[in-house]
Amino acid sequence: MLATQELSSSEKLDWLRLIRSENVGPVTFYHLLGRYGSAGEALKALPELARNGGRKKPIRVCPKQQAVQEARALVDFGGRMIGASEPGYPPLLKEISDPPPLISVKGPPHLLTRETLGIVGSRNASAVALKLTAQFAAGLSNRGLIIASGLARGIDSAAHQASLAGGTVAVLGGGIDVTYPRENAALQQQIAEQGCLVAEQPFGTTPQARHFPRRNRIISGLSRAILVMEATPRSGSLITARFAAEQGRDVFAVPGSPMDPRARGTNNLIRNGALLAESVDDIMAELATGRGPALAEPDAPLHALAPAPSPAEKTLSEARPRILELLSPVPISIDELIRLSDQSPSTILTILLELELAGGLERHFGNRVSLTR
Amino acid sequence: MLATQELSSSEKLDWLRLIRSENVGPVTFYHLLGRYGSAGEALKALPELARNGGRKKPIRVCPKQQAVQEARALVDFGGRMIGASEPGYPPLLKEISDPPPLISVKGPPHLLTRETLGIVGSRNASAVALKLTAQFAAGLSNRGLIIASGLARGIDSAAHQASLAGGTVAVLGGGIDVTYPRENAALQQQIAEQGCLVAEQPFGTTPQARHFPRRNRIISGLSRAILVMEATPRSGSLITARFAAEQGRDVFAVPGSPMDPRARGTNNLIRNGALLAESVDDIMAELATGRGPALAEPDAPLHALAPAPSPAEKTLSEARPRILELLSPVPISIDELIRLSDQSPSTILTILLELELAGGLERHFGNRVSLTR
Repeated sequence: MLATQELSSSEKLDWLRLIRSENVGPVTFYHLLGRYGSAGEALKALPELARNGGRKKPIRVCPKQQAVQEARALVDFGGRMIGASEPGYPPLLKEISDPPPLISVKGPPHLLTRETLGIVGSRNASAVALKLTAQFAAGLSNRGLIIASGLARGIDSAAHQASLAGGTVAVLGGGIDVTYPRENAALQQQIAEQGCLVAEQPFGTTPQARHFPRRNRIISGLSRAILVMEATPRSGSLITARFAAEQGRDVFAVPGSPMDPRARGTNNLIRNGALLAESVDDIMAELATGRGPALAEPDAPLHALAPAPSPAEKTLSEARPRILELLSPVPISIDELIRLSDQSPSTILTILLELELAGGLERHFGNRVSLTR
Repeated sequence: MLATQELSSSEKLDWLRLIRSENVGPVTFYHLLGRYGSAGEALKALPELARNGGRKKPIRVCPKQQAVQEARALVDFGGRMIGASEPGYPPLLKEISDPPPLISVKGPPHLLTRETLGIVGSRNASAVALKLTAQFAAGLSNRGLIIASGLARGIDSAAHQASLAGGTVAVLGGGIDVTYPRENAALQQQIAEQGCLVAEQPFGTTPQARHFPRRNRIISGLSRAILVMEATPRSGSLITARFAAEQGRDVFAVPGSPMDPRARGTNNLIRNGALLAESVDDIMAELATGRGPALAEPDAPLHALAPAPSPAEKTLSEARPRILELLSPVPISIDELIRLSDQSPSTILTILLELELAGGLERHFGNRVSLTR
């Protein structure tokens, strides 16, 4: 886990440049940070690492000017950036594996450090579910919990609306300044003024489908527990529930009649071990047991392995072809790769890092990797 | 457990006389049977046992003529009596502690020996729950299960109606010939013709409130599993669910919205470990795991202790005052009584038996006893 430390403004700018550089995701970010000791040193190493990974044209390292512009735009917007090592970073989010190295936030700091409960559910919610969501969100808010959600239509909106006064956190799929969805423009504005907005994507980013699982993972990551109000069997809310379970957070689900197709997802969650929630009291009673979230995920975070001594170039060049051979477009766990290749973790991680920076590798949740299709 | 054996008609008449005698319930019945070897011998012993228990006026032993009349009336009605030791007795009912020594039945024998599922729920059921009940009952019926219920209004009626064609068993609170409730007269008639009626109480008995827990215990006792459709928190269906759990049977419950007060009981059951049932497939899948009901209840049936050697009269007369002292109108477990009195189980059981026959003892589920108030 990252030690808690404020970043100087130049360090933070280096962090921003590093995470905005081509092919650098959170896993790689922490790996580079561990190996090179600072984001500044990692930035210098990027071009050679990418070449080692087979990259022909040079990797695009985020220029300082671009990072400065993003930071300024965020300040002009009234926001700020918080690094995962900094004290204002949401404490439970920091515990997940590979938390966003930097989040853009707008809102009072205390909304990100108090106990938070995520409320999620379907976009096409029933009137009954919307009413119930408002009851839960207001009730939990009154008991002092911050409510986190994803600012989508339906359940998310009802949850934010009812917790505006008590404290609401909206995690956005795109940039913090981008209004999405259009019909929630007024609510988003209200949250910007009274609550807290959080975004992982760069300022100005239009949200795309691939951003939403990451957003969901942040909602559950911020939260002590999540509450699923209503969900069809293929709903994105079930993905949030899965993340929550993987992150060791409690999952509550509201039951519904078998006659109601929108209750199928939540009933299924209950069948599979989620806690049945009928009322705010149910949730408060469970939270009061004080077990709290497990503070480690099943996968040890990769950055825990770093800094490792850099493997010798001879070792790496011998191992590269074998690793490439073992990889395919089907995700495989890194542990499996270590076992099958009989190479040291530092060798494997270095080769994967190079390959990722060269654009040849995709990372998947659960410490799995595949060749880019 | 009782060995399986047909009863001769004179033995069966003795069984009937014994269970219809004053202060003889199933626990005492099996105890007497064990101790005296046959119901006939037990009948002879009743008067002295009751006197030993402190009875002033003689105990009322059921006259032979009364038993003959009941048996004849049942035959005229088209029914028959089945003893707990007989092969036609429902096999799972036989496994519960202290099953009814004799049940009156009307209907084809196979309906009592095939795999059965009990469906119970509130009398004031919602339209949605009634519809769902019909779907479950018909669906389970189509898969070859017999449906048992209690012929009450609401859920019970819907369950019987939908399983008439496939096989339905109605367990009655009163005598097998007594129409109750009035508004279900036509349905009761249909079940008498197409399904199976079961009653523990004597022919002609008008059902009373105290009969219904015993009826519920037979519904769960007959069943491999029970399904609770809808239940308010104080519903009798929850009593059936408790019996089912004590009897080692699966309990399924249908979830409902927190907005629906009639779902509170079922949601609570699920929270406490009942299996969430949304569809016939859910139930069939669980039953197919083949675990089946646990074949012993937590309390070993009392009749398993008998036949014991009759304790010496000296031992009994010394122990009686101490046992009476330990008893009160608050139920106490027999195990506790054995421990506190430091007497042998056979001594305790004999004294309790005498006391019960004298009208001074009440038996409670879970092997507990109290002084009659």
